[in-house]
Amino acid sequence: MTGDEQHIMRAYDRDLEAIQAMIIKMGGLVEDAIMNGTASLVNRDTELAEKVRAADKSVDDLEELINEEAARTIALRAPVSTDLRIILSVIKIAGSLERVGDYAKNIAKRTSVLAEMRPISGSDGTLKRMAREVQTMLKDTLDAFVRRDEALARDVINRDQDVDQMYNALFREFLTFMMEDPRNITACMHLHFIAKNVERMGDLVTNMAEQIVYLTTGSRPDENRPKGDRTAFMDGVD
Amino acid sequence: MTGDEQHIMRAYDRDLEAIQAMIIKMGGLVEDAIMNGTASLVNRDTELAEKVRAADKSVDDLEELINEEAARTIALRAPVSTDLRIILSVIKIAGSLERVGDYAKNIAKRTSVLAEMRPISGSDGTLKRMAREVQTMLKDTLDAFVRRDEALARDVINRDQDVDQMYNALFREFLTFMMEDPRNITACMHLHFIAKNVERMGDLVTNMAEQIVYLTTGSRPDENRPKGDRTAFMDGVD
Repeated sequence: MTGDEQHIMRAYDRDLEAIQAMIIKMGGLVEDAIMNGTASLVNRDTELAEKVRAADKSVDDLEELINEEAARTIALRAPVSTDLRIILSVIKIAGSLERVGDYAKNIAKRTSVLAEMRPISGSDGTLKRMAREVQTMLKDTLDAFVRRDEALARDVINRDQDVDQMYNALFREFLTFMMEDPRNITACMHLHFIAKNVERMGDLVTNMAEQIVYLTTGSRPDENRPKGDRTAFMDGVD
Repeated sequence: MTGDEQHIMRAYDRDLEAIQAMIIKMGGLVEDAIMNGTASLVNRDTELAEKVRAADKSVDDLEELINEEAARTIALRAPVSTDLRIILSVIKIAGSLERVGDYAKNIAKRTSVLAEMRPISGSDGTLKRMAREVQTMLKDTLDAFVRRDEALARDVINRDQDVDQMYNALFREFLTFMMEDPRNITACMHLHFIAKNVERMGDLVTNMAEQIVYLTTGSRPDENRPKGDRTAFMDGVD
């Protein structure tokens, strides 16, 4: 390898490092959004909700920046094989992160609506646990990305079932509350909606983890994972 | 330009054409999935529902093929500027199409559950109209992609509001039905879920249309579009 080639390689590695650092930063912001969005809702904290909404702008901006940097790197360095796979994976992961951020923002947005409704006993705790599980899954996914850790990514994929089970439990709870007292219907419809958002965040994090398995192994995780729609509505369907 | 360069250019154009043809094929399959998924549900046609579920496999396979071909083209042709933007847009559009297909499949999956429940008068018609509107939006988005038609893409973006309004109307209807008679609660929860899925398909098609505006103009559509969460839950929030 000539000195020039080494020099170019290093510049390329720096580009990749920079893009991956942006993903980690974006991921951290989205982790915060998940926790703060849920906390604002559970504590009926409209001020925190407003912060979550404002922070989502930074997440969106970072996605755009990552897309631009990724395109610039491809144009400038013409990467192939693994390097190209990394960049294309980064674009996909950034896209999924942006959507998770959106869901978190939507949860925060409901804070003021929920504040005016009858509290539904018990559901807040389960919602918080679900959100914490998704946040941990996201944290582990980002770690798996940085360390190219296939086993950790696969672990995240498996844990999505726990989130789905929590969702199922909540769904049945809401149904019961609504049947018991029609005055619970409106609040339960909101809470059901929020629970479904958290469950979908789990799906998106799982997609990211699958992308990391692909990144580290070059092939998609096996297709046996029962995807997405493994929720209460489906009892007796699958 | 030398003869060799011309030869290479033509090969590159052929690659691009091939990838775009795959997007159109994938889009057609997803259009079918939207209509057949909704039809299976409305007509409680479990046989058609099964076809929709089976067809989703082809959609997933096409996405993977498009991703591979896109990566191959980047590695082989090292495209820059507009050409690169086309390829990266194609990857994003394929990703959104795959998700729309998933939602359509999920709707089809609920056919057998709904078949066992009390019919909720009127809601089927609105659901069908919503799905038809989303299908038309998708068709126009694919046309806008092929013709690089910015105006048509912007028109699609605007029409997403109609879908949101239909969703809002349905949401209020479901709430009323549930309050009137608790025996409607379970069926209405399912139907609400389905309506929300159709509304989300509209959001994803809108994302694709925004990607086409970006593709044709090089800049993102203005940020004033009230995104995603413009639904009944949000009355009085935004």
